[in-house]
Amino acid sequence: MHEFELIKNYFQKLSSKSPGALNLNDDVFFDKKNRLVVSIDTYTEGNHFLNFKKPELVIKKIIRSSISDLICKGVQPKYYFISGSGNKKSFSQSNLSKISKALKQEQNKHKIFLSGGDTVFSNKLSFTIASIGFANNIIYRNKAKINDDIYVSGNLGDSYLGLLVLKNKIKLNHSLRKYFTNQYFMPNLQLKLIAHIKKFANTSIDISDGLLTDLDKMINNQKLSYKLFLKEIPISKNLKKVIDLKKLSKINYISNGDDYQILFTASKNKRGIIGKIASNLRIKLTKIGSTQSFDKKSSIVNDKNMQISLKNKGYFHQF
Amino acid sequence: MHEFELIKNYFQKLSSKSPGALNLNDDVFFDKKNRLVVSIDTYTEGNHFLNFKKPELVIKKIIRSSISDLICKGVQPKYYFISGSGNKKSFSQSNLSKISKALKQEQNKHKIFLSGGDTVFSNKLSFTIASIGFANNIIYRNKAKINDDIYVSGNLGDSYLGLLVLKNKIKLNHSLRKYFTNQYFMPNLQLKLIAHIKKFANTSIDISDGLLTDLDKMINNQKLSYKLFLKEIPISKNLKKVIDLKKLSKINYISNGDDYQILFTASKNKRGIIGKIASNLRIKLTKIGSTQSFDKKSSIVNDKNMQISLKNKGYFHQF
Repeated sequence: MHEFELIKNYFQKLSSKSPGALNLNDDVFFDKKNRLVVSIDTYTEGNHFLNFKKPELVIKKIIRSSISDLICKGVQPKYYFISGSGNKKSFSQSNLSKISKALKQEQNKHKIFLSGGDTVFSNKLSFTIASIGFANNIIYRNKAKINDDIYVSGNLGDSYLGLLVLKNKIKLNHSLRKYFTNQYFMPNLQLKLIAHIKKFANTSIDISDGLLTDLDKMINNQKLSYKLFLKEIPISKNLKKVIDLKKLSKINYISNGDDYQILFTASKNKRGIIGKIASNLRIKLTKIGSTQSFDKKSSIVNDKNMQISLKNKGYFHQF
Repeated sequence: MHEFELIKNYFQKLSSKSPGALNLNDDVFFDKKNRLVVSIDTYTEGNHFLNFKKPELVIKKIIRSSISDLICKGVQPKYYFISGSGNKKSFSQSNLSKISKALKQEQNKHKIFLSGGDTVFSNKLSFTIASIGFANNIIYRNKAKINDDIYVSGNLGDSYLGLLVLKNKIKLNHSLRKYFTNQYFMPNLQLKLIAHIKKFANTSIDISDGLLTDLDKMINNQKLSYKLFLKEIPISKNLKKVIDLKKLSKINYISNGDDYQILFTASKNKRGIIGKIASNLRIKLTKIGSTQSFDKKSSIVNDKNMQISLKNKGYFHQF
């Protein structure tokens, strides 16, 4: 779920009798007794998506964003509920037909089922999605150990470049435009990891707000810091091509969010099994750094082991 | 959940593999295997609530509206998730403090726990609430039998009068104003019925959109109609007083929604147990009519058995 510190201060105590709420400091709600895992998020036009010109792509993106919260915890999403607020234009027959078709494709791809929802009139377009799954256990936040390896699945940054393309902030040829915007709207969730990630991850989170922001969140109650190696952070061939061509700094393109890849830590003795599983499943799992004791400052370093700084750590949903 | 026929046509087929979705034609989602019951609804300013001048009262109203969907099915709500979209003013420190206090009171009164949520920026204020409970069984819609008695809990119409007061459409003295607006914001949910309603009800719904609208919905897939007796429809002493004083027509004040009372049908042989339970629990359960065969038209009749018509059947959330 999105973060909002102010709200947390007011509402954390209200959740104290609901152990599954995990102090409102995790990505999901987990009621172990009933095996229930829930994630709920709201997506608004102009904030979480630019506009509704391509309803089918927006719907795909927000469904994936929602179920990503469960997937990163090792939980297969099963049901989703979608509540939309919008006007007649947003929910025209033509748009409803596109939305319905997109949902059907997402259902087939991710083995999830529409289970309810609501639609209300509003001039401001927004969607709230609740995703539900069942599990005997989940991977929690704040369970990293000191000197854990830090891993990330897939590649980072493609989605952000897609956003820049959509905002006309970068010019690319047609095929690259298509590649990056597809990555923005339809991030590849790591479905194959669901059944395996509990075998090796100590703690995990999905990258929605940006690598560094989400890494901070993943260990926000722990007396730990981290060291990351810029060179190790995985990017696609296409992103590498654009960075080289346009002489961009990699650091400014890998922590901007919307990646929906899984960030996790694992003990060093899991390197073997992680390599084996990645190879068997044909999944890219890259070691990008490690956790360290709190007296060292969190840092990301370049080839010369020099700490580098970012323009922007990531995206916060804030007032 | 609110109704929206257009959406249903597009999305019903998407829920076909989720039996718990009940074809999106019930107030809740029910996964019998996992005992899971879910309701999700969105409430927008200017539509489901007038304004946010009294955040604590709006919050109480929408929480009760949400859990009412479970209660009418004989399910104790356990967890709720609340996702708010609004601006800085709506979520000022002062408002957050009032919201938090109101939620705490609702938690204590209804034995529910905040379990998660989200807050996003929007100039349009809205809340989506998901309520979750667990049950081995629920009371479904569309399970009425022919010649069932139709019952309603509590009184109807008080909430609508409260709305008229808030809209300055009716002038009343201070104490009546207070009474009706309290009924509008804080309808008395029939918590004591949860444990008993399954003993006698064949089908049930909560009255959110209006007596007749919700009655139609409760049996919308059945070849049944109904006959109601206006005289039998229960109203409070205060509403009777206002109706007499202002020479109003009762019919125009009992089907306008927001009552959050339980409407249900029961076989005639349950009259004894219903009377006994009502008396033991000190709950008002009133027989207001009966179901009948589809070849007769649904009607509501006055003292002279003459069919009467309404200005407005109830409230539809529509585009």
